[in-house]
Amino acid sequence: MTALATSLTPTHLHFLEALFPGDGLVTRPEEMAVYGADSSRRSAMPWAVVRPRTEEQIVELLRWAEAERVPLVPRLRGTGMSGGAVPAFGGVVVSTLWLNRVLDIDAEDFCAEVEPGVVTAEFQALTQKRRLFYPPDPASLKISTLGGNVATCAGGMRAVKYGVTRDYVLGVRAVLPGGKICDAGGRAHKNVVGLDLTRLFVGSCGTLGIFTKLTLKLLPLPESSATVLAAFGSLHDALEGARGVFRAGILPTALEFMDATACRGIAQIKDVPWPTAPNGDTRAVLLLKIDGSASALADELARLERALSQAGPSCLLKGLGPREEEPLWEIRRLVSPAAFQLGPDKLGEDIAVPRGSTVQAVEGFQALGAEHGVHVACYGHLGDGNIHVNIIYDAQDEGQRARAKACKEAVFRLTLSLGGTISGEHGTGITKAPYVSWQLSETERALMAGIKQVFDPSGILNPGKGWV
Amino acid sequence: MTALATSLTPTHLHFLEALFPGDGLVTRPEEMAVYGADSSRRSAMPWAVVRPRTEEQIVELLRWAEAERVPLVPRLRGTGMSGGAVPAFGGVVVSTLWLNRVLDIDAEDFCAEVEPGVVTAEFQALTQKRRLFYPPDPASLKISTLGGNVATCAGGMRAVKYGVTRDYVLGVRAVLPGGKICDAGGRAHKNVVGLDLTRLFVGSCGTLGIFTKLTLKLLPLPESSATVLAAFGSLHDALEGARGVFRAGILPTALEFMDATACRGIAQIKDVPWPTAPNGDTRAVLLLKIDGSASALADELARLERALSQAGPSCLLKGLGPREEEPLWEIRRLVSPAAFQLGPDKLGEDIAVPRGSTVQAVEGFQALGAEHGVHVACYGHLGDGNIHVNIIYDAQDEGQRARAKACKEAVFRLTLSLGGTISGEHGTGITKAPYVSWQLSETERALMAGIKQVFDPSGILNPGKGWV
Repeated sequence: MTALATSLTPTHLHFLEALFPGDGLVTRPEEMAVYGADSSRRSAMPWAVVRPRTEEQIVELLRWAEAERVPLVPRLRGTGMSGGAVPAFGGVVVSTLWLNRVLDIDAEDFCAEVEPGVVTAEFQALTQKRRLFYPPDPASLKISTLGGNVATCAGGMRAVKYGVTRDYVLGVRAVLPGGKICDAGGRAHKNVVGLDLTRLFVGSCGTLGIFTKLTLKLLPLPESSATVLAAFGSLHDALEGARGVFRAGILPTALEFMDATACRGIAQIKDVPWPTAPNGDTRAVLLLKIDGSASALADELARLERALSQAGPSCLLKGLGPREEEPLWEIRRLVSPAAFQLGPDKLGEDIAVPRGSTVQAVEGFQALGAEHGVHVACYGHLGDGNIHVNIIYDAQDEGQRARAKACKEAVFRLTLSLGGTISGEHGTGITKAPYVSWQLSETERALMAGIKQVFDPSGILNPGKGWV
Repeated sequence: MTALATSLTPTHLHFLEALFPGDGLVTRPEEMAVYGADSSRRSAMPWAVVRPRTEEQIVELLRWAEAERVPLVPRLRGTGMSGGAVPAFGGVVVSTLWLNRVLDIDAEDFCAEVEPGVVTAEFQALTQKRRLFYPPDPASLKISTLGGNVATCAGGMRAVKYGVTRDYVLGVRAVLPGGKICDAGGRAHKNVVGLDLTRLFVGSCGTLGIFTKLTLKLLPLPESSATVLAAFGSLHDALEGARGVFRAGILPTALEFMDATACRGIAQIKDVPWPTAPNGDTRAVLLLKIDGSASALADELARLERALSQAGPSCLLKGLGPREEEPLWEIRRLVSPAAFQLGPDKLGEDIAVPRGSTVQAVEGFQALGAEHGVHVACYGHLGDGNIHVNIIYDAQDEGQRARAKACKEAVFRLTLSLGGTISGEHGTGITKAPYVSWQLSETERALMAGIKQVFDPSGILNPGKGWV
């Protein structure tokens, strides 16, 4: 195998200038810098940034890059948390943000065709106008794109009831190294012809092809929704409350939780509705959403309250319909900023464990925080066992930095010992790449490397990312 | 690449005798014959049949088969409709029916671990006892197995609301050619570490590995369900009724339909509740199921009736709860046997089209039947656009046989022109393998062949099946 190029030659740059005229090519370092970072806070300077306007340009680009062995790093809004879009090993960044047309939203087919650069929330607003529903709701949805969501198999809060991005991708059109187009799947909701290339692209982090079109599945829009917030004096009671909900046969749309550390952080920046010291102690808060027809909701809300009440909450608030629900969800959105009340830096992990192991996991993570002398705040998608573990520390302090890293690794080990995964929804990118072999066997990694080679024999697409 | 063996040598047989003592090895033709057929009505005589009791035997078998280049055809209950389990190109049939333990059903984790030979309906009964729910419901579920369902990505009636088998597979443990074990996925409901090997195994028809364990996702069991049967004087009105249901924001659990030919067939073997000639004419029947909490159901049932009534049904029956629903679903189960009232033989296809194209598809298929002088009965999973097209003819008549085949091919062409797929849930096996290239491009097929080679470099697993 010919080695990858290690920089761009003048001939390479001439080629890119011709293929991406005007502002289609970016080479000034101050302009390129923003294309070299993502929400992982890692960054690296691209060799160049190209901004195609058409699929034809992408085809040409991939034909050239394959022939010249030039690494390409596909990118959209860069909201990923694990460095998947950072050109850490060099290469030309390919931003497909300008491929941002909604080609079709079809209320009869219950599907949509979009280009990768469409912003998720804008797409959802368009579908809602037609009383259609695209459930995946990663926290970044107001700024992240559908293409990025598919590349990372983005999750979100509604996954408990509705599943993740994978469950809404019916088709993927992608340009492969060498310039061939793979048009996998389509608009039929059921399809079992051949191996499932469509879902293989989902979560592949730009390592198999560059998306130019996505076909997405839509649902009828639920008529309304309702939310309950319940605070508890112990983590155990809160998780018992959550269990009671499932036991009552309720499949909530979302089932979020915050641990004592997260609750304390929020109480420092906002008046909170739950008991705080010295009048009481709140060790965990649950937030649940349900959705459905307006008339069915009132009844389900009553059942939800009954199920939660059995676990003895110290406070139980409810909201019926978006206007009443919003203040409750505003609290949830404060968790991430509130973490910084406890320290200037954080490692934001997103492990997932089997749903029944959440008590053991969260208690274990808290103990690991104490053991390593760092704050650990746990919150997130309890209903999926997908827990965001924030390790809060001061990066200026070398000792704390080392202890935070050691704590993170201990979190991964505990997660794996519980049968969990080191990433529930953020992917492994570069920040978790060193730990992938803790989870995946040599056999699995060899299969993935083999599959990668089928799509990208020279290894030009997003090298060094994910699972290698 | 060394060519595959074309028969078993005495040394091969000695090896198999030693590895599968007693009734673990079957070599008498009269016993082997049943292992050479499936529900496609195709058959071929296996070279031998082995019935492992342990994963260790499968590991040894795959080590040997890889070294000796002996083709293996994995098999369970053989309920597949497309010949996927038929050893049409020779080889040793591997029945994993004796790996049939339910290892774990966990009401906290909402997941189960099972061996491939567990019968789907028996598993569902066990989950129901614990108020858990495994939604996939292929028509064969009383006799088919979970391993077979995963190998074919089996669909079913509940796919409209709950999706297909793919959506419930969290992990697959499989033995690969050469004897290595791939243990993909796990018990966490969210997991994005590495490429999605788990879903790649789903629907791969035994071409990538032999399953030894499956980890399945479960839901809380819905409290109750309700069913509505509505008959219409025209196909157009029926499909308008179905559209109205979705427009009302209702996502039914199941939405089945039968066309005029299917209705006529049923009326010949049973008293039917809908108007028949000379008192009226029923051109289409819809059957819908909804599920949820008992109190919410009454309301949703009323909404469902309102939505359907706007399309002017000639008859509308409802049933609340399983006892009242059962007689309505009994009618649905008669469609397939009733087809034989119209002729002794049938080609049972299962195309799927984008949901909004169902009218055009069904009217088109009926016209193709008239054009080719064969009966065409359409019925099935309208809610997914997944239509079972039964072409009914007399195979003794050479002209009819040719016309039936020509009609089938015309059905595929019309399906593809509507953006559909030649198989919604039966897979391509051997019966549809010749048509795969009508749907999939050379690029897609080359990727699939490349992936296949990563898992099975010598091509010993179920050769000639699926998409090649």
